[in-house]
Amino acid sequence: MIAAMDVLGNPSSVHREGRKAKMLVEKARAQVAALVGCLPAQVVFTSSATEAAALAVAQKARHGGVFAALPTEHDCLGVWSEGALPGWYDRQGRYQPQPEADVCLLALSAANSETGVMPPSGFLKQMDAQHVICDITQVAGKIAVAFEAGHRPAYAILSAHKMGGPKGIGAMINFTHDDPEPLLRGGGQEMNRRSGTENITGIAGFGAAAEAAARDLAAGRWEEIEELRNILENALATSAKKTIFVGNQVPRLPNTSCIIAEGWKGETQVMQMDLAGFAISAGSACSSGKVKASKVLQAMGYNESEAASAIRVSLGLETTKTDVLRFADEWLAKRDKHAQRAA
Amino acid sequence: MIAAMDVLGNPSSVHREGRKAKMLVEKARAQVAALVGCLPAQVVFTSSATEAAALAVAQKARHGGVFAALPTEHDCLGVWSEGALPGWYDRQGRYQPQPEADVCLLALSAANSETGVMPPSGFLKQMDAQHVICDITQVAGKIAVAFEAGHRPAYAILSAHKMGGPKGIGAMINFTHDDPEPLLRGGGQEMNRRSGTENITGIAGFGAAAEAAARDLAAGRWEEIEELRNILENALATSAKKTIFVGNQVPRLPNTSCIIAEGWKGETQVMQMDLAGFAISAGSACSSGKVKASKVLQAMGYNESEAASAIRVSLGLETTKTDVLRFADEWLAKRDKHAQRAA
Repeated sequence: MIAAMDVLGNPSSVHREGRKAKMLVEKARAQVAALVGCLPAQVVFTSSATEAAALAVAQKARHGGVFAALPTEHDCLGVWSEGALPGWYDRQGRYQPQPEADVCLLALSAANSETGVMPPSGFLKQMDAQHVICDITQVAGKIAVAFEAGHRPAYAILSAHKMGGPKGIGAMINFTHDDPEPLLRGGGQEMNRRSGTENITGIAGFGAAAEAAARDLAAGRWEEIEELRNILENALATSAKKTIFVGNQVPRLPNTSCIIAEGWKGETQVMQMDLAGFAISAGSACSSGKVKASKVLQAMGYNESEAASAIRVSLGLETTKTDVLRFADEWLAKRDKHAQRAA
Repeated sequence: MIAAMDVLGNPSSVHREGRKAKMLVEKARAQVAALVGCLPAQVVFTSSATEAAALAVAQKARHGGVFAALPTEHDCLGVWSEGALPGWYDRQGRYQPQPEADVCLLALSAANSETGVMPPSGFLKQMDAQHVICDITQVAGKIAVAFEAGHRPAYAILSAHKMGGPKGIGAMINFTHDDPEPLLRGGGQEMNRRSGTENITGIAGFGAAAEAAARDLAAGRWEEIEELRNILENALATSAKKTIFVGNQVPRLPNTSCIIAEGWKGETQVMQMDLAGFAISAGSACSSGKVKASKVLQAMGYNESEAASAIRVSLGLETTKTDVLRFADEWLAKRDKHAQRAA
């Protein structure tokens, strides 16, 4: 990214400085494509997964005109939903679709942004994948994304900062054979699919992060993190027996723990753990500023009191066993104090 | 920007890391507001002036439903235009509106992106300013932007990279008293006016660039650059008498020279000057990759041959008199060769 800052050219310019900038963008495009398992030409850089979601949803006319999202989807997709999908969740986050579900374009995340719960492997094979917008923001770099031929979604969306890259850069992967109708129009950048002078620094950082993420994934580093996550949950469960670990009986992200300690508000936990030096969240980061019970958890059948008492703990590749045990100690001590005050 | 890369938090998070990120964003918002002469709360960060344009145009329903742009506007605004504004240009870029012009929301740039030509000072006083989207991308940091009370446009748009900041970050200034309807929706960032995790690095760079631009402007550094631009044009005019300098009799940006050498294609000039180490463009950078005669110049009454023979030369604060004279030498020599080959 620092090297990219010195590239002064505009990728649309044909002179030497412009060509240098263009090369940076195209290198990053190939790096992101390699991580996602698509062709570089299928990658459309956007300013965020949120913009990628809006761009994907804007294609709904081509898919029959109606877009719908499950209530557990991230707001960047959920906000555009024109109807709920019929079906229900269990408390582990397993979705039971109604057989008559018939939607034109449908959002389905490869892992939930609050709980880390993933649909059963091969889920795209059981449905009309070409009607799906698949949100891979949470999984990209943590789980191998391998859409099989014939079962690829229409679009996938992701962002760089969830894989250690910079904030403010994302991509929409277009698996259809048509160029998407652009949402941002003007100079015709990104081969007329998304106008606006390219965020060179961010794109370079996205590419580097994607390459590093592919390497870490191949090296099995997230399996080590998964063990730490399990150590954390075991440590909490041993002393706080009523604690709920959402999705711990189904496939989920290796680094996420969604923890419900009923009666102890998520926001309070966030503030108390912040004082102890831990950055956690109540709900996904985007919505964590708002004091609301998680609608994701409520959709999964948790009541409002449970949903309001949830935190999301995310482990990174730098997290150590010492960190995890110190977190457990602090959390349990604060929980005891809270229980005493409440009693 | 480099310091901002180390701020790992998400500005929407309430923990310490999140608050640090939030502070960076708010500092930059104040820096941009100071340059533009607005309140920080009126600044909505976007990924580009292009996105800012789309966001501003999306407000048209509040302004009567119809948006129109002059044919000389940048494509990021022009592409949304539902009708041409009645009136005409002269070859200096002066616009003569028809008195019966009656449009709900209207794009008007404070300086043209290809020629640097500016409307007469105080132009917003002569019209219903609250129906105007003012594109200040070209002027911000080069000319003092001072919208007077009662004559402020509804919206202004700008981007960081035109004032030395990073590419991929811009802003829409909302001078109306209503929050804009968001174009990107989801997490509710930017006070619900523009969702998507914030481009912290880019925003920090935008703020720093705005502060530096305000300082350079106050120090009169662009007046020095204007002198160099005039030296350049005089040097070319002395030897190449038929050369046209678009807008040289009207107010225009201090650092822009739009040069027409009829019969010598703009793209050819760009390539030839690139070999000599000069990065110039034919048209604005966004569209310069496309081989088309400038529609801006055609709207101003230049014929297709003239419009296809134009280049835009931009001087920066680092440009020296030596650079300018070397450019003139190279350009004149290449022009002579071209004339010989053509003869």
